[in-house]
Amino acid sequence: MTHLTREDAEARDAASPLRGRRELFDLPDGVVYLCGNSLGALPRHVPDRLAAVVRREWGSELVRGWNSADWTHLNARCGARIAPLIGAAPEDVTVGDSTSVTLFKAMVAAARLRPDRRVVVLEPTTFPTDGYVAQGVAALLDLELRWCDPADPAASLDEDVAVLALTHVDFRSGAMFDLPGLTAAAHAVGAVTLWDLCHSTGAVPVDLAAADADLAVGCTYKYLNGGPGSPAFVWAAPRLQDSLDQPITGWWGHAAPFEMHRDFEPAPGIQRMVVGTPPVLALSALESALEVFDGVATADLRAASLALTDHLVELVESRVDGFELITPREHERRGSQVSFRHPDAYGVVQALIARGVVGDFRTPDVARFGVAPLYVRHVDLWDAVEHLVTVMESEEHLDPAYARRLAVT
Amino acid sequence: MTHLTREDAEARDAASPLRGRRELFDLPDGVVYLCGNSLGALPRHVPDRLAAVVRREWGSELVRGWNSADWTHLNARCGARIAPLIGAAPEDVTVGDSTSVTLFKAMVAAARLRPDRRVVVLEPTTFPTDGYVAQGVAALLDLELRWCDPADPAASLDEDVAVLALTHVDFRSGAMFDLPGLTAAAHAVGAVTLWDLCHSTGAVPVDLAAADADLAVGCTYKYLNGGPGSPAFVWAAPRLQDSLDQPITGWWGHAAPFEMHRDFEPAPGIQRMVVGTPPVLALSALESALEVFDGVATADLRAASLALTDHLVELVESRVDGFELITPREHERRGSQVSFRHPDAYGVVQALIARGVVGDFRTPDVARFGVAPLYVRHVDLWDAVEHLVTVMESEEHLDPAYARRLAVT
Repeated sequence: MTHLTREDAEARDAASPLRGRRELFDLPDGVVYLCGNSLGALPRHVPDRLAAVVRREWGSELVRGWNSADWTHLNARCGARIAPLIGAAPEDVTVGDSTSVTLFKAMVAAARLRPDRRVVVLEPTTFPTDGYVAQGVAALLDLELRWCDPADPAASLDEDVAVLALTHVDFRSGAMFDLPGLTAAAHAVGAVTLWDLCHSTGAVPVDLAAADADLAVGCTYKYLNGGPGSPAFVWAAPRLQDSLDQPITGWWGHAAPFEMHRDFEPAPGIQRMVVGTPPVLALSALESALEVFDGVATADLRAASLALTDHLVELVESRVDGFELITPREHERRGSQVSFRHPDAYGVVQALIARGVVGDFRTPDVARFGVAPLYVRHVDLWDAVEHLVTVMESEEHLDPAYARRLAVT
Repeated sequence: MTHLTREDAEARDAASPLRGRRELFDLPDGVVYLCGNSLGALPRHVPDRLAAVVRREWGSELVRGWNSADWTHLNARCGARIAPLIGAAPEDVTVGDSTSVTLFKAMVAAARLRPDRRVVVLEPTTFPTDGYVAQGVAALLDLELRWCDPADPAASLDEDVAVLALTHVDFRSGAMFDLPGLTAAAHAVGAVTLWDLCHSTGAVPVDLAAADADLAVGCTYKYLNGGPGSPAFVWAAPRLQDSLDQPITGWWGHAAPFEMHRDFEPAPGIQRMVVGTPPVLALSALESALEVFDGVATADLRAASLALTDHLVELVESRVDGFELITPREHERRGSQVSFRHPDAYGVVQALIARGVVGDFRTPDVARFGVAPLYVRHVDLWDAVEHLVTVMESEEHLDPAYARRLAVT
C-alpha cells in the first residue's frame, strides 16, 4: 500500500507550474479524462471562436473572408503556434491535410531526397496508418520496406536506407524512442529521418532543430486539442525545404497560386508541402485551441507529464494486483501515457468508463491511460485509481454487459 | 433597352419551384451575392448544428463521440447526400480530403486502371490545380500530359490515352463540356474518364450513372455551401470500385481499420478512396449544409439556373455597352455562371463589390457572376444590373482606389 493520500495529490497540483490550466478546458462534470492521447478535450474558448468564424467571417464576409479574415494564412498561422512545442522556427511548420495524407507527402518527399536508395526502415508496432502509408509509397516509388526491431531500430540502418520513419512515442505502450540518437544514427549512414510526433506533440516536447532532424509530421487532435479529425502539421529542416519534391502538387503549394499559371512551380519554404484550399473551419478551431499553450514552458510541460505518469504508476502498482506495466519506467524512454497489460483489460476499461474514468483498450490486453498535462491533475489520477480499486474488488470488470466497442486512436 | 421590369423579375421568382429556398440561407442585408461559385453562402441552420457538434459531441462525449455521434460514418453520410445531385447511388460517393488531394487520389487510381497506357489528356484552361495535380501524377507514374483543344477534346483521344481528365464547367467562362458525349468518346478508345465537377455540383445536375462515367471529383464549398475549404467528394462507377488502387493508403480506407493489422488491405467499395481520420467539424458542417437540397428536384435546379443566367445575360446586354459575353448562349453548353469580358473588368467588379454586388474578377479582363439557384433570385439580378448601370454611367469603375486584390476561386 502506498503512503500517498488524496491530500498529497492536491498538494502536488497546487505546486505545479501548470496549475489553473485545466480551467481553460470545458470538461464534463464527473469525468476523469485519460484519453487525451486519442482525442483532446475541448478548450473552453473554441466554441465562441468557431461560431464567430462561421457567422461573421463566412456568413457575413462571404468570399471576402479570404482577405478580411486572412484565411489565406491559416495554414502558416497554425504552424507558427505549434512550432515552439517541437523545437522549430515559426516559419518552418504548416498544417492542412489529415495525418495520413501528410505522412504520405512527407514520406515521398523524404525518399526523393535519396533517389539512389531503395529502403525505408519502419517498425512493426507503429500506429497502423504509418505502415499502410509506407506500403502505398513503396508501391509508387518501387521501394522496399524493412521492418526493424523496435528495441533497436539502428541495427536496421545501412547505406541502402533512404528513410528512417519512426513514431516517436508508441501509441500502445507509450515507449519513446531516442529522437536525437536515432537521427544521428540515420545520418551516419546517409539516411533521412521522418518522425511521427502524433503521440508526442503537446505533452512531450521535442527539439527537432537541436536534433538536426529532417522531417516530422504530427497530429493536432490528440494533445493539441484541435477537435476530432483536425488537420496534421508538417515540419522540415530549413536546409531541406527548397529541395522537397512532394507529390501532391496542388495550387495552394504553388509559388504564385493566384497567377493561375498553367505549370506548377513549388512555393519556397515549407509552404510547398501545402496542397489544397485550406480547411478554414478546422484550422480556425485549431488555431483557437492552441491558445491554451500560450505561456507554457516546454520544460514545465515535460516535468508535469512525468510527475503525473510516475504518480499513476505508483498508485496502480501499490493498490491493485495483476496489472503489468508496459510503459517504460525510465523517464527518458516514456511518453505521456501509462499502459498496463491485464488479462481482463477490456472489461476493466469498460467498467472504468461506466464510472466516468475514460481510458481506452488496445487489443489484445492493454489498458491505456493518456495523461494530458494541461488538464489532468494528480487528484484526477487519485480518483481514477480509487475507481479502479472498487472495480477490481467488486469485479465489475467481469460484467458481460460491456460489449465490444470500436477503439479509435 | 429591354422591356423587362423589376415586377417581371418578381413574378418569375414567385413562379419558381425553388421559391422560398433563399430563406434557408443567412445572407447579409444589402448584398447581392454572385460568388457562390467560389464560396457558397451560409445555410441558416449550420451554426447551431456546428455548435452542437463542438459542445455536445466533442466537449461532452469526448472520444466516445466516434460511436455515440456516429463520426465514423460521416464520410459516407455526406457522400449519400451529394449522390442524388450527380446521378449516383448513395453508397458510391464519399467525402474527406481537399479537392486537390482528392483529384490526386482519383487520377492515380484512374491511370492505374490502364497500366499499359501513358497519356493523360487534359485541357489548358482547366482550373490550375487540376493541371498541377496532373503534373505531379505524371512525374510519379511516368505519364505524358497531352493538353487538348478545349473546343474539341475528343480530337486528342487515341489508344495511347489512359485518362481523359476534364473539368465539366469552366471556372472562368462557365462553358460546359458534353459529359455523356466525351465519356463515350473516351470509352471508344479504351480510356477512363475523370470528371471534375467542382463548378457543377449543386447548380448543374449531372447523371454520372446514365453517362456510364468512370470517376468524378467535386468541391463542396461552392454550390454545395459546405463552408470555406470544406472537403471534396469522389465517386467511382460501381463496376470499377473494387479495382481502384489509390496511392494514399491510410487506415480509414482499410478493410478493417480497428483490427490494426500490419498490412494494408483496401476496404471494399468507395470507402477505399478515404485516407485518414475524418475531419469531423468540417464534415458535420457540410452534412448540415446539404439539407438545403432536401426535396429539390434536379430538373428544377437546372431550369432555375438557366432561367436566371438567361435573365442576367438579357439584362446586361440590353442595358450596358462594352460587355462581351464569353459564356455560351446555348443551354446545353452553359454552367451556372455568366462571364463577360470588359477592358475595365477589374474596376467594374470592384465598384460593384463596393455597392454590395459581389461577383469576381478573373485575370486578365473577365467579370464573373455565379448564379446559385437556391438563393439568387431574378430580382437580385435586376438589382445587380441596376447597380452596374449606375457604375458605368458614373464611371465609378475608373476610380484608382480599386487596387489589385487576390482572387480565390
